[in-house]
Amino acid sequence: MKFTLIKTDTNSKARIGEIYTSHGVIRTPIFMPVGTQGTVKAITQRVLDNEINAEIILSNTYHLYLRPGTEILEKAGGLHKFMNWNKPILTDSGGFQIYSLSELRKIKKDGVQFKSHLDGSMHYFTPQKVIEIQRSIGSDIMMPLDECTPYPCDFDYAKKSKELTSQWAVLNKKAFEDTKSLYGHDQYLFGIIQGSVYKELRESSAKDLVKLDFDGYSIGGLAVGEPTEEMYDIVDFTTDFIPENKPRYLMGVGRPENILEAIARGVDMFDCVMPTRNARNAYLFTSLGIVSMRNSAYKDDFSPLDPNCDCYTCKNFTKSYLRHLFNSKEILALELATIHNLTFYLNLVRESRKRIEDGTFTEWKNKFIKIISINLQTKKEN
Amino acid sequence: MKFTLIKTDTNSKARIGEIYTSHGVIRTPIFMPVGTQGTVKAITQRVLDNEINAEIILSNTYHLYLRPGTEILEKAGGLHKFMNWNKPILTDSGGFQIYSLSELRKIKKDGVQFKSHLDGSMHYFTPQKVIEIQRSIGSDIMMPLDECTPYPCDFDYAKKSKELTSQWAVLNKKAFEDTKSLYGHDQYLFGIIQGSVYKELRESSAKDLVKLDFDGYSIGGLAVGEPTEEMYDIVDFTTDFIPENKPRYLMGVGRPENILEAIARGVDMFDCVMPTRNARNAYLFTSLGIVSMRNSAYKDDFSPLDPNCDCYTCKNFTKSYLRHLFNSKEILALELATIHNLTFYLNLVRESRKRIEDGTFTEWKNKFIKIISINLQTKKEN
Repeated sequence: MKFTLIKTDTNSKARIGEIYTSHGVIRTPIFMPVGTQGTVKAITQRVLDNEINAEIILSNTYHLYLRPGTEILEKAGGLHKFMNWNKPILTDSGGFQIYSLSELRKIKKDGVQFKSHLDGSMHYFTPQKVIEIQRSIGSDIMMPLDECTPYPCDFDYAKKSKELTSQWAVLNKKAFEDTKSLYGHDQYLFGIIQGSVYKELRESSAKDLVKLDFDGYSIGGLAVGEPTEEMYDIVDFTTDFIPENKPRYLMGVGRPENILEAIARGVDMFDCVMPTRNARNAYLFTSLGIVSMRNSAYKDDFSPLDPNCDCYTCKNFTKSYLRHLFNSKEILALELATIHNLTFYLNLVRESRKRIEDGTFTEWKNKFIKIISINLQTKKEN
Repeated sequence: MKFTLIKTDTNSKARIGEIYTSHGVIRTPIFMPVGTQGTVKAITQRVLDNEINAEIILSNTYHLYLRPGTEILEKAGGLHKFMNWNKPILTDSGGFQIYSLSELRKIKKDGVQFKSHLDGSMHYFTPQKVIEIQRSIGSDIMMPLDECTPYPCDFDYAKKSKELTSQWAVLNKKAFEDTKSLYGHDQYLFGIIQGSVYKELRESSAKDLVKLDFDGYSIGGLAVGEPTEEMYDIVDFTTDFIPENKPRYLMGVGRPENILEAIARGVDMFDCVMPTRNARNAYLFTSLGIVSMRNSAYKDDFSPLDPNCDCYTCKNFTKSYLRHLFNSKEILALELATIHNLTFYLNLVRESRKRIEDGTFTEWKNKFIKIISINLQTKKEN
C-alpha cells in the first residue's frame, strides 16, 4: 500500500499524508464514519459522499458476516457495490464486536468461538476466517483477528493476550498472502498493536507486528475505560515504534479533543460511533461547545445550531425546529443531527491538516479544545 | 382564491387546473404528502422540494397545536419558516385527529372538548379556535372544524352530525372573515362536506356549504371503513354539487387506485399517510405492483425496486440492499422507501394530468390500476 508522508509538524508528532487505494486517495489525518451494517446510520450515501465529504468509511466484519452474510455480499460483487459506495472502506476484524456484543465467547489457541447476538447461533472466527470474510466484503483496508483486552486488565493476562494476538498476526498475514481480492481491486492488511496500558507490552507488540511488515498499524485496546491521560500516554509511546512511512490508526477513538490530542501524538486515522450515536441522542458537537438539543432552553431559539458550520442542517434549520423534531421523535431529527455531527468531525480533521500544513496546529488545537469541550447546557444552567 | 380550471376530460369527470397561492401554484390533480408534525416523516425538505417535487404538503392543526404550540409557531413567523418549507401548506382542522387519537372527546354545540393523547391535558376546539390556530400556523389553505362520522353510522346520527358541521361552517367562515393573516401572505378556507354514505345528506351538506362560498370544498368522512365502491359512488355523487370553478379535495384518500378513480369522478386534491406510513413498513408501490421489501425472495435480487422509476432509491440501490436495511432495522430503509413511495404518488398525479391533457386518461387509468394493484409477493408464492 502506498502511503506518502507529506509533512510532520515541528511542534508535535502530528503529520499529514496520503493513502492510495483502488477506490481513491485518503488524506490523513482522517476520521472514518462508522457504517456498521453497510450504512452510516440515518444518512444517505450521497450526503456522506458529496456533503460530509467522507474519504473513507468503516464497516464491521462481525455484523456483515451475520447479516446479510458473505454469500449475498459476494453475489453483489462486494460491499462497495452492495451499498453503492465507491470510496474506500476499512473493515475491522470483528474481534471487538465478539468481545462486546456476543455471548458465550470462548477464546481458543486458534480462534474465537462465539454466539450471535442476533439469533444465538454459534460461530468460529480464526485469523484465516476473518481474512476470508473480508475478501468477500472487498474492503480496501482489512484488519486481522486480535484479542481486545478490557480495562482494567492485569499484566499477566495482558501479556498472554498480546502474545496470542502476535501469534494470530502471523496467521492473519499468511492468510492474506495466500488469498487474493475477489473483485479485482487492491486490498491491504493492517496489524493491530495490543498490550493494554503496559508500555513494555505495547513495545513488544509493535515490534512483533512491524517484523511482519503490515500495510499499516492499528492501536487497539484503548478507549475501553482507561483514564484519558493514560490513553494519550500509551498512544504517544506506541507511535514511536511504528515506522514513519506507515499509517497509524487509533481504533474506536473518540471525542473531538481525543482525536486532536492523538493527532498531536502521531496518529493518522480514527473511527468512532460517537458523532453518529450521539447525534441520534440529541447530543451535538459545535464550534461553540456541546449542545443537548432536547433542552427546553432551545424551544424558541431560532438561531442555527452552529453559526460557524455550513452543513445542510445549520444552513437551513433553527435550534427551535431541531428541538421540536427530537421532542416529537421525528426521524428527520436523526438525519439532520447526524449530518451536522459528521460534518463537525470531518471539518475537525480537515482543519487539522490545514493547521499542520501551515505550522499552527498545536496553538490552534490547544485553544480549540477548550472551546468545543464546554457543555453549553451546564454553562447556561450555572 | 384563484383556481383556474384548464380542462375537463371528455370520457370522465377528471379535470386539470391550477390553484394560485402566495407560496406558488399548485397544479391539480395533486397529491399532498402528509407532514403531521411539521416534517414529512423520514425525508428532508430539499428531497421533498427538489426530487419528489411536492407542490403542496399537509400538516395537522391538532398536532402542531399540542407541539410545538402556537406561541412558538408565531415566534418563528409561522410554519413555513419554522420548518423551512416555502411552497404551499394545507392544514386540516384537527377534527379527524380529535376523533381518532384523543380520549374523552365530548362534542358540544359550540365545539369539541378533548384530552391530549400526549399528556392527558384537556383542550377545547371551537370553529373560532381552529381558525385562530391556523392563523398562527399560517397555512395557505385552512380547514374548518367539522365532525367526522365513523362507519357504519346510522342515518339519524349522520343527519344530526351533518347539521352540526353546517352550523359550525357558518362560525368557521365568520371567524375567517373577522381575522387576518399574521404573516402577510394569503390564507384560504375550504368547507368540509359531510353526510356519511347518505346521498340525501351529502347533497344537503354540499348545498349548505356552497351557500357560504368557500374557497374550495373538501369531502370528509370517507375512507373510514366503508366499501370502496360505496366511497366511489358518494364521491361521484357529491362532486356534482360543488361549483366547477372551485377545487375539490377528498380527505385522507388513499391507495393509488382510489386516487385515480376519484380523479375520474372529479376530485382535484388528495392527502393520505399511506405512501409514507407504508414505506416505513416496507410496503412499496411500484409500476409493476406491490412489493413487501422484507420478503426473502429479494435477498439476492440485485435489480432496482422499480425499473421504471427514476427516484434516488431506484437509481442507486438494489432490492437486496433495501431488504438488508429493513431487516437490519436501519434508518436509511425508512428514508429510501419514503422517497420512492412519494415519488410514485406524485408521478401518479403528474401522469394523470398529462393523460387528461392528451385525452387518454380513462384508458390509461383502467390499464394502470390492474398492474399496480397486483401484490407481487402473493403472485410469486402462488
